Amino acid sequence: MHRYRSHTCAALRKSDVGETVRLSGWVHRVRDHGGVLFIDLRDHYGMTQVVADPDSPAFKVAETVRGEWVIRIDGVVKARSDETINKQMATGEIELYAREIEILSAAKELPLPVFGEPDYPEDVRLKYRFLDLRRETLHKNIVRRTQIIASMRSGMTSAGFAEYSTPILTASSPEGARDFLVPSRIHPGQFFALPQAPQQYKQLLMVAGFDRYFQIAPCFRDEDPRADRLPGEFYQLDVEMSFVTQEDVWGTMEPMMTKVFEQFAEGKPVTKQWPRIPYDEAIRKYGSDKPDLRNPIEMQNVTEHFAGSGFKVFANMIASNPKVQVWAIPAKTGGSRAFCDRMNAWAQSAGQPGLGYIFWKEEDGKIGGSGPLAKNIGEERTEAVRTQLGLEAGDACFFVAGEPAKFYKFAGEARTRVGEDLNLVDRDRFEFCWIVDFPFFEWNEEDKKIDFAHNPFSMPQGGLEALESQDPLTIKAFQYDAVCNGFEIASGSIRNQSPELMVKAFELVGLSKADVEERFGGMYRAFQYGAPPHGGCAFGIDRIVMLLVGAKNLREITLFPMNQQAQDLLMNAPAPAMPKQLMELSLRVIPPQKKD
Amino acid sequence: MHRYRSHTCAALRKSDVGETVRLSGWVHRVRDHGGVLFIDLRDHYGMTQVVADPDSPAFKVAETVRGEWVIRIDGVVKARSDETINKQMATGEIELYAREIEILSAAKELPLPVFGEPDYPEDVRLKYRFLDLRRETLHKNIVRRTQIIASMRSGMTSAGFAEYSTPILTASSPEGARDFLVPSRIHPGQFFALPQAPQQYKQLLMVAGFDRYFQIAPCFRDEDPRADRLPGEFYQLDVEMSFVTQEDVWGTMEPMMTKVFEQFAEGKPVTKQWPRIPYDEAIRKYGSDKPDLRNPIEMQNVTEHFAGSGFKVFANMIASNPKVQVWAIPAKTGGSRAFCDRMNAWAQSAGQPGLGYIFWKEEDGKIGGSGPLAKNIGEERTEAVRTQLGLEAGDACFFVAGEPAKFYKFAGEARTRVGEDLNLVDRDRFEFCWIVDFPFFEWNEEDKKIDFAHNPFSMPQGGLEALESQDPLTIKAFQYDAVCNGFEIASGSIRNQSPELMVKAFELVGLSKADVEERFGGMYRAFQYGAPPHGGCAFGIDRIVMLLVGAKNLREITLFPMNQQAQDLLMNAPAPAMPKQLMELSLRVIPPQKKD
Repeated sequence: MHRYRSHTCAALRKSDVGETVRLSGWVHRVRDHGGVLFIDLRDHYGMTQVVADPDSPAFKVAETVRGEWVIRIDGVVKARSDETINKQMATGEIELYAREIEILSAAKELPLPVFGEPDYPEDVRLKYRFLDLRRETLHKNIVRRTQIIASMRSGMTSAGFAEYSTPILTASSPEGARDFLVPSRIHPGQFFALPQAPQQYKQLLMVAGFDRYFQIAPCFRDEDPRADRLPGEFYQLDVEMSFVTQEDVWGTMEPMMTKVFEQFAEGKPVTKQWPRIPYDEAIRKYGSDKPDLRNPIEMQNVTEHFAGSGFKVFANMIASNPKVQVWAIPAKTGGSRAFCDRMNAWAQSAGQPGLGYIFWKEEDGKIGGSGPLAKNIGEERTEAVRTQLGLEAGDACFFVAGEPAKFYKFAGEARTRVGEDLNLVDRDRFEFCWIVDFPFFEWNEEDKKIDFAHNPFSMPQGGLEALESQDPLTIKAFQYDAVCNGFEIASGSIRNQSPELMVKAFELVGLSKADVEERFGGMYRAFQYGAPPHGGCAFGIDRIVMLLVGAKNLREITLFPMNQQAQDLLMNAPAPAMPKQLMELSLRVIPPQKKD
Repeated sequence: MHRYRSHTCAALRKSDVGETVRLSGWVHRVRDHGGVLFIDLRDHYGMTQVVADPDSPAFKVAETVRGEWVIRIDGVVKARSDETINKQMATGEIELYAREIEILSAAKELPLPVFGEPDYPEDVRLKYRFLDLRRETLHKNIVRRTQIIASMRSGMTSAGFAEYSTPILTASSPEGARDFLVPSRIHPGQFFALPQAPQQYKQLLMVAGFDRYFQIAPCFRDEDPRADRLPGEFYQLDVEMSFVTQEDVWGTMEPMMTKVFEQFAEGKPVTKQWPRIPYDEAIRKYGSDKPDLRNPIEMQNVTEHFAGSGFKVFANMIASNPKVQVWAIPAKTGGSRAFCDRMNAWAQSAGQPGLGYIFWKEEDGKIGGSGPLAKNIGEERTEAVRTQLGLEAGDACFFVAGEPAKFYKFAGEARTRVGEDLNLVDRDRFEFCWIVDFPFFEWNEEDKKIDFAHNPFSMPQGGLEALESQDPLTIKAFQYDAVCNGFEIASGSIRNQSPELMVKAFELVGLSKADVEERFGGMYRAFQYGAPPHGGCAFGIDRIVMLLVGAKNLREITLFPMNQQAQDLLMNAPAPAMPKQLMELSLRVIPPQKKD
């Protein structure tokens, strides 16, 4: 027989009854039932109930074992009596009668329990992560994570992609977030940087003549800890393709990702045809470029009904500024004063002056609008609003007015709030869309200049002609996001592979050709030696795993996370370097000056 | 039709004749055959011959294109005449008659040619790596690399393993090579380290209850450049299993890796049953713990034939020191004075006093030994040597004498030299073996103390009893290497998961329990809370790819390598940091003092 096990703890079935077997695993729980000891023995695969009765030669050892000890058990498989069969367990029809128990590894008193999964302080959980990871939910999440990533790999391979690893010791990127630096020992005073993403390398791969690249890529950003981002590293499914339009990227990734989600959605519906929503439309309908389409609310422009109306606040705004619009947030089933007042109070708590509303009741067989706004604009306009939005008695509508660029975010939050409060959101589904046609540039109010709105390497729609003749702020990019349930899960673009266009685009944000050469030398140089049209995207793996396992916290889907102070409590990192190490790196630590 | 292509450059066949198609790719070569232009159009997948005749509307553009321009071509597929069919090309039966050519990206004059693959200085190739990678051999090697890694992943998954990613920002490891450090911004004066290998994390994963781990793991060592190691990062197939003996690890990895090799060996034979050779035996037979088993030579101990013989040099050495042995390196077909003298001269050039030999000739139907040694030890002993080694007329034998610990390396080199010079090595095969039972400790002559011979985390054979009672230098470890064609391609062990044993083992090399706690706190702590028996190994991916594609240089199988000065010439890394970055990291660069 094998030194440690003939079966895993999930393997034994009724058909094994009578067999002499050997199991190894962790003592999940020991129970004493009138002198007979029951041990739940756990391993990676599952759990088996072990019985040690006082007559067994194993009993003496069984009496000594405690939770989380690692033991080997030899015994005979017996069928459970009908009333003790446990249908929740794969091995629930049998139990193992122990004949011999060997202690492979004892455990000291546990700093946090594995059985029962009570809530425990995070620093204890991270310091003893090897215990924390034994908990059923975390163990399951991590296993699921490996399966999701394996499924992505398999999907990408089936779609004709190959996985290329790009360097992790690379150059500092002047765009984007803060880099982690790595001092070079051989070149004193010089530094490598860890990649924020393999963006430049994957584009260089296309220029080098490879056609369909993907990578489960580690990425690094030295950002201040945030609730939705772990300090340090994260993973993305990084993709790039040559000789493609953006439709090719969507057409490739959409079925692949739909399949991954369907595989792990546990029966929840998954969007098969992802709607492609222009950025402007997403802002207008949902007040967000990452709309949660499980929320059925679509906002509408109802400016005309307020222009010149008796509701002077809105009417005057509209009259004095042609940019002003009034947007309506329809609230099906929200037609009560109590709900409308609650929304109004929420808006005030969010720093708004309030949230205008109308709600409709049926009285004497006639639908009529209620609330101060309805009174101010009168019956006819109230009815026109209701008709435009398709609302009924029992429904409500909220109104936001001003310049959309300034209020759309708040409007989007109100839409979310209404949808969630009224239970209009169907939580048990995965709703995807592509947000497309992002603006290429944006106005930087602080510096009074034009900036790149997103990725400076994206191809502007209209090409050189647009850059030369169009109002920059109206130029769109071949740039897109994938959104699921209100979370951006991917971002991508068709790249600007023309050196001429690249220089022109950077000029518009105030950077010279020399700046481009200095900052993006590798890529800029490459584009001058035959660069194919190419594009791609990157999917955020951590977010996808969170969505699929229903986790709320990144630490629930990450093997060895740092804490919010960017420390690895298990391995004790970061830690002071030895003087010899610093000397080799030609570095000296300068204690930061205390602020008064 | 698609914006860029209806087919790849490898797709068109005779069955497509008459079709109007669209291709995009790089201009590999343009030839002018009496006014008709032939363009070899290349993409990731292959090559297609394009014809532009002077009547074609595409001709004017075709005249302008140069090597490595990216173009789109619309045209009609025509069959080639019998005498112009090219059987070397997948598309060799057709050619494309161009009707329209669009220039997608022109190329400046090339700093290194892609066509023809001439030798070019390495710094140019690395700076313009995107061009270098377009060369056929490098392109093919990199594609093959991705396939080999995909095959490993698939093999590991089939064997029930899951891939877990371990942290890249982690703690400095006091053992092994020099770490790359990453300064922490949030904790001034403290540093992360990049992992030299995920050794501790994979063991912690086992302690955490996961059963079969693998990872295509990036590893980092800040070592001085060496010919056989690229600066910076390298990849290993990292593996760990719980509840296993070393036989389980071998039995799992051996068929998996054999299959990977068979898949890419292009018909070369691959060892199916890897011999398991104890370390001591490997040293004795091959003078190396990474023997090239394609070389059939096995050395033998022939001390007895020289003890008390007329060859006084050896006889006196044997008489004065019981550790002295004489090893014979049999050289089939090497039986000529010329060859023996050449080997002797080689030994002298390698700093040895010489290399004694005997060679055998047949004269008058009788086999007799020749050379000074034969004369000195006499006919009977010479014949005894020949009989022991199974040599014939036309063969030779070389002799090395002394303490084996001191001469075995040279003896191994001589064995290699003989095998190669006499063409005894069958180059066209992959010969694997496991080297097992490595010594746990070794004598450190410099510090006059005992050190760990290899991995301090390995389990010593004999356990605590051996550590307490046995001469440490005779203790073996459950530690093993996999060797292919003379290269170590993997290393592994069953781990020491007992805190008590760990402390005892470290005591023997002069380290206290406190040292263990300080240096390996995470793992030492983990072992006290129920650690399963576990073990594993790590295969060097770069070496495996080199063996399978027949590359001699790591840069031939690496996408974006650094140069030997640890610089990325393409991305210009490392580079000075901005003062703001250094300030944020609380670091100052101290220029190293020049040595006089």
